[in-house]
Amino acid sequence: MPLPPEFHEIARRVNNWGRWGDGDELGTLNLITDEVVRGAAAQVRRGRRVPLALPLRQNGVQTGIIPGRINPLHTMTQINQETFGPGNVAFSDDVVTMGLQAATHWDALAHASHSGTLYNGRPAASVTVHEGAAHGGIDRVPYLVSRGVLLDVARAKGLDRLPADHAVTPEDLDEAAEFGRLSPVAGDVVLVRTGQMRSWLDGDRDGYGFPAPGLSIRTPEWFHARDIAAVATDTLPFEIVPPEIEGLWLPVHGLHLVEMGMLQGQNWNLEGLSAVCAEEGRHSFLLCAAPEPFAGATGSPVAPVAVL
Amino acid sequence: MPLPPEFHEIARRVNNWGRWGDGDELGTLNLITDEVVRGAAAQVRRGRRVPLALPLRQNGVQTGIIPGRINPLHTMTQINQETFGPGNVAFSDDVVTMGLQAATHWDALAHASHSGTLYNGRPAASVTVHEGAAHGGIDRVPYLVSRGVLLDVARAKGLDRLPADHAVTPEDLDEAAEFGRLSPVAGDVVLVRTGQMRSWLDGDRDGYGFPAPGLSIRTPEWFHARDIAAVATDTLPFEIVPPEIEGLWLPVHGLHLVEMGMLQGQNWNLEGLSAVCAEEGRHSFLLCAAPEPFAGATGSPVAPVAVL
Amino acid sequence: MPLPPEFHEIARRVNNWGRWGDGDELGTLNLITDEVVRGAAAQVRRGRRVPLALPLRQNGVQTGIIPGRINPLHTMTQINQETFGPGNVAFSDDVVTMGLQAATHWDALAHASHSGTLYNGRPAASVTVHEGAAHGGIDRVPYLVSRGVLLDVARAKGLDRLPADHAVTPEDLDEAAEFGRLSPVAGDVVLVRTGQMRSWLDGDRDGYGFPAPGLSIRTPEWFHARDIAAVATDTLPFEIVPPEIEGLWLPVHGLHLVEMGMLQGQNWNLEGLSAVCAEEGRHSFLLCAAPEPFAGATGSPVAPVAVL
Amino acid sequence: MPLPPEFHEIARRVNNWGRWGDGDELGTLNLITDEVVRGAAAQVRRGRRVPLALPLRQNGVQTGIIPGRINPLHTMTQINQETFGPGNVAFSDDVVTMGLQAATHWDALAHASHSGTLYNGRPAASVTVHEGAAHGGIDRVPYLVSRGVLLDVARAKGLDRLPADHAVTPEDLDEAAEFGRLSPVAGDVVLVRTGQMRSWLDGDRDGYGFPAPGLSIRTPEWFHARDIAAVATDTLPFEIVPPEIEGLWLPVHGLHLVEMGMLQGQNWNLEGLSAVCAEEGRHSFLLCAAPEPFAGATGSPVAPVAVL
Repeated sequence: MPLPPEFHEIARRVNNWGRWGDGDELGTLNLITDEVVRGAAAQVRRGRRVPLALPLRQNGVQTGIIPGRINPLHTMTQINQETFGPGNVAFSDDVVTMGLQAATHWDALAHASHSGTLYNGRPAASVTVHEGAAHGGIDRVPYLVSRGVLLDVARAKGLDRLPADHAVTPEDLDEAAEFGRLSPVAGDVVLVRTGQMRSWLDGDRDGYGFPAPGLSIRTPEWFHARDIAAVATDTLPFEIVPPEIEGLWLPVHGLHLVEMGMLQGQNWNLEGLSAVCAEEGRHSFLLCAAPEPFAGATGSPVAPVAVL
Repeated sequence: MPLPPEFHEIARRVNNWGRWGDGDELGTLNLITDEVVRGAAAQVRRGRRVPLALPLRQNGVQTGIIPGRINPLHTMTQINQETFGPGNVAFSDDVVTMGLQAATHWDALAHASHSGTLYNGRPAASVTVHEGAAHGGIDRVPYLVSRGVLLDVARAKGLDRLPADHAVTPEDLDEAAEFGRLSPVAGDVVLVRTGQMRSWLDGDRDGYGFPAPGLSIRTPEWFHARDIAAVATDTLPFEIVPPEIEGLWLPVHGLHLVEMGMLQGQNWNLEGLSAVCAEEGRHSFLLCAAPEPFAGATGSPVAPVAVL
Repeated sequence: MPLPPEFHEIARRVNNWGRWGDGDELGTLNLITDEVVRGAAAQVRRGRRVPLALPLRQNGVQTGIIPGRINPLHTMTQINQETFGPGNVAFSDDVVTMGLQAATHWDALAHASHSGTLYNGRPAASVTVHEGAAHGGIDRVPYLVSRGVLLDVARAKGLDRLPADHAVTPEDLDEAAEFGRLSPVAGDVVLVRTGQMRSWLDGDRDGYGFPAPGLSIRTPEWFHARDIAAVATDTLPFEIVPPEIEGLWLPVHGLHLVEMGMLQGQNWNLEGLSAVCAEEGRHSFLLCAAPEPFAGATGSPVAPVAVL
Repeated sequence: MPLPPEFHEIARRVNNWGRWGDGDELGTLNLITDEVVRGAAAQVRRGRRVPLALPLRQNGVQTGIIPGRINPLHTMTQINQETFGPGNVAFSDDVVTMGLQAATHWDALAHASHSGTLYNGRPAASVTVHEGAAHGGIDRVPYLVSRGVLLDVARAKGLDRLPADHAVTPEDLDEAAEFGRLSPVAGDVVLVRTGQMRSWLDGDRDGYGFPAPGLSIRTPEWFHARDIAAVATDTLPFEIVPPEIEGLWLPVHGLHLVEMGMLQGQNWNLEGLSAVCAEEGRHSFLLCAAPEPFAGATGSPVAPVAVL
């Protein structure tokens, strides 16, 4: 079915096409100005660092439901090889095969399209088998350092994790911001914690993926109003699945990536950060989260680090 | 041939085994304390960000000489796929196969061994085909954020790039530090620029790899004396190749990774950073350079960002 | 636990080490003489051809239980690419990543070892991460064409498929030979049909793998007595799983590959062949089943063809 | 530039569209009837077998010029792993990543298109990133066993190998047929030997690929007139490169795969076969050459075996 009117109405309200020029491929990352970065650095008070990536391994979060999105297959090509003769220094080397969206990752803007179009009106057909994404690929994101803020929706509600059918609403985000004594501002990277990652960490591989709590179709306007630069969460599908409007699957992807030009992160492990923020009584930090610059790719694994 | 006495003498002087406990797997990354990180954040004065990774693509720096170390092969698995029916939001996905040491990367401590031993006296045999590195794997490095300093050896000498047979000496490092008005301190990550990357950027694929200028066997003591946390450079082999002592290949790998427990980075693109530092008149910065946590891997691509 | 006395007794009786010389790496394939091949060609009476391979695709028989043995991941690298300019002939290209034992395949002799030894007394340690199998790799099998005989154990018993706990015994093989009016002779390749493949073809992916009917530990002697050249079957584990003797897992692999030096085939689709043989009233045929010569590999996909 | 009139004139003369029905995906393989197969089996007089595949290994014939067509990367995932406990039978497993057209292979009909069309008038657009080739994929070839004939063009001329600029003409094929006392007939698989493989076997990796002798644009009519089922050769590009008509690259691919619906084989090692045929005084044989049934693939490695 075609996208329903509700989608197009929201799309119109959050659309950023042309805002940073017709040739722009960075979208809301443009909001991370030098000034924002200076403010981000100022968040570092203790020097405490918290990693947010899951380990990359074959026994990862993918279950085979999404074609081609395979967990990392890591194999050794050399082990203690005395390349330069016996008795010399020896080397171990390895290779990996993996889906770029398989683990803790960023979706590039080119990851989603609708109505034949990518962000900023680029034709969806500019993603090709030969070159990958000619526009909006992950290699267009040369760095990603900004202020991060944790919206700990689950903890704000006194829950370990949200129920699987919980759509995270703007009101939930406000509640979490208040809980964290936060005022998200332009250029911030928002991390939304549902607690769903806990099911994965507890060994419930099948339960982690679907169904899952996640962002409501109403949240893009919340992010847009505050000029958020990027959003990541601790679930596999990012947004609420099954969807709020019957037959309208993953609309938030369409709104964030295509309309707003805003990067999305998935499968981020926010459990440790939740504990540290609660302990420190602070929910903002410097966030280092640069993707790997795979040429023409529509996503990339990322090893984000929060520094408080 | 067995490692010569010169190697063992230096090894004894730089050895860090047991310094952070018998079970330690972090090595000199232990030197990046909370205090160091606070100092690193304080380097951010302008908010200017400089990316240091090469694009990850099939036409990369590997030429096939090192078995198994293949350039990234990126392929699309889905292109604008309307997963949930015609008219819905559409998705593009991709996969990659690559050598973990193929591009801009960190060597994990487990990447090198000598005399049957890894860093901290772990048996080299703890790297296995089934599990990869049980000790000193790249997944042991949960984050890597510190102060970075650029030792621009080439520019300090007024050169675009060092001659291919130039072994970078402690004296060269001192000269570059003075040129950058730097005093490297404990916990710093040192980036040594030879300018060799320029040959790659100019299209001389074969000329980039070997021979190449690089660190002299005399430099590990310089890093050790200053308690440097990690070192990266802009060449493929990291150290001078062919070696200074006949038959003693890649001794600096053995000293850094095995004896000191210090991470090494290779194929870092320092050309842009060199220009920015010259322009800003500052050679120190916040460095975000977390590896991807591949379980049991002996290296990882990295997308480092310098923030000035 | 160490291998039990029963294993070693059978091993002694079926052992072929030294039979074809100390340097031999072909094992029972030596039994396929020119004369055998002439006899195989003489089996072709109708010219009817029956393929025995499963399609190679991501949705294959592997379920993730065996680490690293991934189903084929096939991706396009070029689609109708006009390599030589617009209007010219255009080309499509593709790549694959797969476990060599993932689908319809041959196990190489080097696939199994016991007590530190491979076939013909070669050290198990001659299989290395750098070179793969130095001895008994699948690349040692330059061709595999012989007479094939179908022992249709299931059909001989009037069953669609054997129960999952059915160990195929020498008596079952005799019964199937009689049913097919066959006298297996030296150099024959025996295909043992249990009907288990039917569960896979019917869509029961999980049910196909384990538990499964399969060859009893008593059958290697039957094959040895008749100088069979190779054996393939229509199940994932080849032999009865769980095993007949508690704690002695996959002993037939040890007996066939290590002691006898006899290739094994798994996941062969014998359903079509079963029907054709029944229809033709003949259970012997020319069998073309050459593995792909992956250097140092311990197995290979194969696309066997029976010609009646 | 558009394809020139010469191309279209030949195309019209050799076109087989509709000949075996509008839904046909086998093309000239339809010519391999049961009767042809019986005749093929009758070629086996000595029982002598000759393998025609190159080993599959990383150091293979690809040099990186063709994007994505990577040499096989073979890695071990398990080595002598005692899966079921110490003392039990141990197992070695492996995986491979490779271009399907990288080594000794068959091109599927879907490998080439021109003017937007595949064999039998199927739209070129039916090759997609999601499914690969919906029509004319290599998985449509369930078996490939027929009479093979060696046209030893080099030896017929008394040469070790043809000069790199030698276009193999119909007259050359006639000469080689006469040299081999052959009358190619309907359903035959023709192997054309140029001797170019010798340069590869002698270690001249760069010299093997381009330029290379190969089939002239005039040969498709020769094959068509004789109803040949498939053709393979011992070079990388199959046909003469650079081309005979300026700007018209690889026209024979377009004529064979698209117009005739005839499979092509490349990188076949015909050196051993050339010697054996000369020795036996016979140039016809049973040929077993089934591709691996990769679903939707446009090619497959093959391990062909000639049986004389």
